[in-house]
Amino acid sequence: MPRLVLIRHGQSSWNLENRFTGWWDVDVTELGVEEAREAGRLMAARGLDFDLCFTSLQTRAIKTLNLALEEMGRLWLPVEKDWRLNERHYGGLTGLNKAEMIAKVGEEQVRIWRRSFDVPPPPLEAGSPFDLASDRRYAGIAVPRTESLKDTIARVLPYWDSRIAPALRSGQRVLISAHGNSLRALVKHLSAIPDDEITGLEIPTGQPIVYNLDDNLAAIDRYYLKDR
Amino acid sequence: MPRLVLIRHGQSSWNLENRFTGWWDVDVTELGVEEAREAGRLMAARGLDFDLCFTSLQTRAIKTLNLALEEMGRLWLPVEKDWRLNERHYGGLTGLNKAEMIAKVGEEQVRIWRRSFDVPPPPLEAGSPFDLASDRRYAGIAVPRTESLKDTIARVLPYWDSRIAPALRSGQRVLISAHGNSLRALVKHLSAIPDDEITGLEIPTGQPIVYNLDDNLAAIDRYYLKDR
Repeated sequence: MPRLVLIRHGQSSWNLENRFTGWWDVDVTELGVEEAREAGRLMAARGLDFDLCFTSLQTRAIKTLNLALEEMGRLWLPVEKDWRLNERHYGGLTGLNKAEMIAKVGEEQVRIWRRSFDVPPPPLEAGSPFDLASDRRYAGIAVPRTESLKDTIARVLPYWDSRIAPALRSGQRVLISAHGNSLRALVKHLSAIPDDEITGLEIPTGQPIVYNLDDNLAAIDRYYLKDR
Repeated sequence: MPRLVLIRHGQSSWNLENRFTGWWDVDVTELGVEEAREAGRLMAARGLDFDLCFTSLQTRAIKTLNLALEEMGRLWLPVEKDWRLNERHYGGLTGLNKAEMIAKVGEEQVRIWRRSFDVPPPPLEAGSPFDLASDRRYAGIAVPRTESLKDTIARVLPYWDSRIAPALRSGQRVLISAHGNSLRALVKHLSAIPDDEITGLEIPTGQPIVYNLDDNLAAIDRYYLKDR
């Protein structure tokens, strides 16, 4: 019985509009809702079950989790929400349509910002409408103004170590609903993917990723549930 | 600023069919979904906000909470789910249509079972399809086979004392989504309602009940949010 399943939120409105989203709290689309429900039905049909769930503080991940759990008859499971599972902060790129960005600064610069392991985008400008520093959801947290994937990993892994790994070691089966880059952080760690390869790993929306782990939480196997 | 709001789940399918539900995990109806969403919109429009939410292990209360929080833009709030906020266990009455019950045993007996403070209904029969003793959601819990309102209060109040009251005392604003009788337990306690009066107190579905509390958590004021 697998002990860990990762799921990226269902399609969001800015996935659909091809905008850099990051920490901005956009909702899932109707398709995203259906992806989340289908993920739940698939997990239930394959006999997957869980003891504990983790998600970010972002609506699209929480809602995806809730919809999947509802389909599984598991709304009653405990859910821990934490900012450290949030999406990578895209800084000054937040809200921009990716096509417009490419037209503006060139495909190469966009590729570097999106795909570099340790080069963050330019920071969010002062006075940006996307500034969440005063959002009370993040009270007490130093809200980043931009993040590289490396920066994202640097706050995801301590959370893995402090909250998720101990639950898995104690025998609990864990479901994590999160984001493209916070999940990349976990996949990189669990599957030992090199820095220069992880940025190219695409994690599709609404597809449960199953990890079979050994007792040391090393990955024995990783696969999309739909493929087995 | 009120610190405590109680909400009974939106209409469930067995509310609609007039069946004794108790611990059986029926879903909310379409009307119940809309009641939950409307409650969230009303709380947001009146400027109510929260730091921490509590609910039962039952789908109809959890879903009501999630829908209300979604409308408030507050899905990210921490939610603690506990069986001690579950509905009263209706024992052998579970699943029965109330009209049929009245026809069978008489209105007076049904009234006694439903409204008596300390007379529980007959216990759930062995082999009942409504037996939840082996449901893993209740692992480690002595699932009751029937409960009077007094029995319900006896497990709700320790939870209030151990988890909810400390949160309120520490200044957190609390939203509780629960059930007719687990909320009666709280209202009886907070508003000092006598044993013989509490059973007659009807708590409507999907209506936020606001408590203004003093520093000792004594009720200064209690009202339906829609009425102010």
